[in-house]
Parts: sequence; C-alpha cells; structure tokens
Amino acid sequence: MKFSRLTEKTLIDQIKKEFDSSKPGLIQGIGDDAAVVEIGPKKFILTKDLLIEGTHFDKKSHPPFLLGRKSLNVNLSDIAAMGGTPMYSLLGLSLPESIPPKWAEEFMAGIQSACREFDVALIGGDISQSRIISISVTVVGEGTHIIKRDGACSGDGIYISGTLGDSAQGLKLSTKGVRLGDDNNTDVLLTAFFDPSPQVKLGQRISENQVASSLIDVSDGLSVDLNHICEQSRVGAEIFAEKIPVSDELKVLRDDDMAACLHGGEDYNLLFTVSEQKKSRLESLKKEYEISEIGQVFKGSGVFLVHKDGTRERLKPQGYQHFSD
Amino acid sequence: MKFSRLTEKTLIDQIKKEFDSSKPGLIQGIGDDAAVVEIGPKKFILTKDLLIEGTHFDKKSHPPFLLGRKSLNVNLSDIAAMGGTPMYSLLGLSLPESIPPKWAEEFMAGIQSACREFDVALIGGDISQSRIISISVTVVGEGTHIIKRDGACSGDGIYISGTLGDSAQGLKLSTKGVRLGDDNNTDVLLTAFFDPSPQVKLGQRISENQVASSLIDVSDGLSVDLNHICEQSRVGAEIFAEKIPVSDELKVLRDDDMAACLHGGEDYNLLFTVSEQKKSRLESLKKEYEISEIGQVFKGSGVFLVHKDGTRERLKPQGYQHFSD
Repeated sequence: MKFSRLTEKTLIDQIKKEFDSSKPGLIQGIGDDAAVVEIGPKKFILTKDLLIEGTHFDKKSHPPFLLGRKSLNVNLSDIAAMGGTPMYSLLGLSLPESIPPKWAEEFMAGIQSACREFDVALIGGDISQSRIISISVTVVGEGTHIIKRDGACSGDGIYISGTLGDSAQGLKLSTKGVRLGDDNNTDVLLTAFFDPSPQVKLGQRISENQVASSLIDVSDGLSVDLNHICEQSRVGAEIFAEKIPVSDELKVLRDDDMAACLHGGEDYNLLFTVSEQKKSRLESLKKEYEISEIGQVFKGSGVFLVHKDGTRERLKPQGYQHFSD
Repeated sequence: MKFSRLTEKTLIDQIKKEFDSSKPGLIQGIGDDAAVVEIGPKKFILTKDLLIEGTHFDKKSHPPFLLGRKSLNVNLSDIAAMGGTPMYSLLGLSLPESIPPKWAEEFMAGIQSACREFDVALIGGDISQSRIISISVTVVGEGTHIIKRDGACSGDGIYISGTLGDSAQGLKLSTKGVRLGDDNNTDVLLTAFFDPSPQVKLGQRISENQVASSLIDVSDGLSVDLNHICEQSRVGAEIFAEKIPVSDELKVLRDDDMAACLHGGEDYNLLFTVSEQKKSRLESLKKEYEISEIGQVFKGSGVFLVHKDGTRERLKPQGYQHFSD
C-alpha cells in the first residue's frame, strides 16, 4: 500500500483496492453507508462512526447529553441509509482523567435516550483514558430489502427528505458564540447540528415500499453525497437550485448564498432516487414526511446545478474532507 | 445514572445496571469478553477494543506495522475467548494531520497482515482527523458452542495457555529504551507486548471439544481475569505460584518478583476451567499447545495464591484500571 499524500479519500480508496473483500456472506464491503453480510435468511448491516473532540465537536459548546444522542444517531442514520432497522450498538469511549463525572453521566444519559427512542440495545464496548474525548460507536442493524448507492438509473427522479443546510448554519452560529436558548430561529439551526434526527422510520418505509433505486444519507453534504450516488451508479445528475428545500429558519438567518445547502454536511436527511414507474408509491410517504423532488438522473456523468435563469454549472463535491488541503 | 467518581469499573457497572439489555436474540450483553446475539441457527459474536496513543501505545517505540497487527489481534483475542471464529472487522482510525503517509501505510499493512493470517475481511469503518492517534476496531465472529465466563464449578481445574508476564516485562523494557533487535531474550518479551498472538485456533478447539466450563483471555492480568471468572461463576479459586508458567526469557531477565505474571496484562493467553470428567479431553490439545494446570475452583469466593511453602494469600485484582487512583 502506498500513500503519496494522506487524505481521507486516498486512504479509503487504497484500503478498498488492496484489502481482499471476498468472504462468504459478504454482500457489501467498504464503499457504502454501511457494510452488509448475509446470515441465513437475514441480512445484517454494520456501521461505525467516530466523533473526535476538536474535529467533530467542541466540548465547551456541545451539551454532553446531546453529544451522547448524536454519537448513536449518526450511526443510526447510516443504517437508515441502507433501509435497515437498528438493533444493537457497541460504544468505545475514551475520556481524559480530568473529565467531570457529571459530564460522563449526561453523555451516557444521551446515549440511553437515543437507544430508547430507536429501540437499540447497548451490548458492549470499551472504555479507556485519553488526552482528548474520542467516541466510537458501532451499530448493527438488520434488513430485508437493502438499498445501496449504486442503483440509480437514467430518468430516475432525485428526492431529499427534510431541509438542507440547517446543521452547517447551526455549527457556524455555534462557533460565533450563539447558544441554545438565545433565540427560537437559531435554536432550530443549532439543534440540527447538536442533536440531528436520523431518518430511521423513513428509511424503513422506503425499504418496505421498494420505492428507491439508490439511497444515501446526507452526512458529508449534498454535493458530496449525490456525487457518491452518481459515481457508484455510473450516471449523471442535475438538480434545480430553486427546488432545494430550505427551512424558514435558515431563510431568515442565513448570511451567505446556497453554499450551506449544497456543501454543508451533517443534515442526516435521506437522498434517494426513484424510477418513473415507482413515483406513485411515493404519494403516501409524502403525506407523512417532507419529501422534495430536486432533480433527475441522466445517462452520463457528473452532477450539475441548474439555476433559475437556466444556467447550468458543474457541482463538484465540496463537503468536509479530513486531511484535505 | 450517577457517577460519584469516574473509574472504568464504576462506569461499566453503572452502564450495565441502567441500560436495558433485553432484546430479541441477545444472548450475552455487557460483561463478558464479547457480546453474543443469535441469528437463526447461528450465534454472532461482537467485540470492540480501543487503542489510544499515550494510553495503550507510545507512537515513538511501537512499530506501526506491529501496531496495526495488534489493533486487530486484541479484538480477535476476545473472539477466541468466546470460542468463536472471527469473520469481519470494522476500523475506526483517527490520525493527526502531521502523520507521515509512510506511518499510515505501515499501519494498514499490519492490519492487512493480521486480516490475512486469521482470514478476516475488513468490511467498513470510519477515518478522521484528530490531535492524537486513536484506533477503534470492531470484530464480528460466529460460533456454535459459545463459552462464557460464568460456567466455572467447584472442583474444576484452572488452565492457562502459553506463559504469563512476558508482555508486561516487554512494556517495561520498552519504556527503559530497549528496542527490537537489541538482544534475542529481550526481543521475545518486546514482541509479546508489540505483537501479541491471539489464541484463535486454541479457542476454536476448546469450543469444538466442549471441554471448558468457562473461558476468558488474559488481557487485564491473571489476577483481574481470574477474579472475573470467579465473580461471574460465583465460585472461589486457588492457584499455585510454582505452577504459573514463566518463559525462559522472562526467567533470565526479570528483575522483580511474580508481579508481572500475576498482574501484568496483555498476554492474550486463554484462561479456562475444566471439570474433572472432561480433563481427559485436554490430552490431545496438550500435545499441540502449551497448556498448564495452575489451580482449582472451590465453592466459596475470592482468588487465593498458594506459595511453595504452603502459605496462602488473597490475590486481589491488580491489573490496569483506567481512571484508577
């Protein structure tokens, strides 16, 4: 294995290339929201996400209860993005010796709260000392109709649940010193960042209805995640700027252009594609969930953004990259 | 949840008490070497271990290739300690931006080497940036005859594979500046710490033969791990000082008493108990593996060390405790 320069993408690409991924029962290895293995009649979905102090969260501003919830919930979002049902979790927790017991209590209460909300059992893990807080959660789920990233076809519509950009704007507000409780509008955005909601039920419904040809959660940003779908499905996509769903709170508060919506990560909404024939199956879902059609898949490659005036620009992946320049 | 003081034990005990551990298919939750869930006719074994820079390893002295191997292998040892077969792994890796690409290459080559040795597929994970190196590996195994910690009975013999104390002495030598290649004797001890061998095949054999009433790996030290078996099996144990297996290299080099053998951790040998009736089943195993009978289980509680002169002392758990005073 040879890394010329250390970036998240080169590391993952190299690992994917050089590790043998053939193994009895293995349906999906590295390269989707989660791994999938087949056990008898069932499919098991496995995912692991890290939350590192100073990289993913700031200890001073992130309430520990909400950090506990988020640690589990970002993993549940990966299970949702495969159309699965979360079952079990393992927690790896490294804490500095100086951490107040109260912090650990509130953090664990947050983990417990998310476990109860989504009926997930904490079945194991590891606890250690460290100079910084480092959280590693593994979630195991199960599913019948697994939906991967590679099934989008030319002509499919592109859909997104909820609104985009709230979390990125919430993080921005937080770094500016805005706190929960300061204002109703800012609270909505801060909550999107501090306490995101994984779309587990919607993921299950999309899976049961067998409505989507591809599915991903928007964790790295729309531009990155839609590019993932397109690359893995070997198709292109165009999305319409005016159709991108924006919350009222973000409309009131945002002080920049579309960047937060297009490239801001951690919204944890579901992005999926649906063929023309199956669009009618979405009607009942649309009554229960906020779902917007934002574009369509075409034969070719690349993701394009179409503006109101008809101009069209290439939408390059610009979400958060670890170790990027 | 209320933590009066933050110790590894209070944290785990509190979590065990307050988290609901009932879930369809859950056979073993928090409190053994690994968690076990039942899927149709099969049992799945799940474990997660952390390796944190400055706590579990020193970046300067631990060769990255061996650190990669160890990161996977300490998890495989937990699967071995349930009598299981490792199948899949997930890697969570946080690296400082300043880490040389060469370090990451060698680390990943180490992970790959251990994956190949034990036929384990790396199927997913997460990569992130961090101020320190933080490694979190999850391994999923499967097993038929799972052996837990809680089955030891009065009259059972107590057995250990390999020798004890080498890893603790290796760590001590390393902190004194001794390096791999300096000397044949020190190399054996340093290797026990830098590149421990999980007893996967022995664990599988013990499981197939259905020979052991309880099984654990010696990761925290003999005194801690034997106390785990006794507490969970609600029995007592006595072990004989002169029967504790010590390597020739440790005999030559050790400059202190039995402490390294009794309380030194990370030997990753298997400690197990066998009833009188099943002892004959051990004979074939003894021809292939170094296995020593070191004591016996009695009705009661506590672990006792019997010296050559017949004196008997209580052997309190004294292995490594995170957040201990």
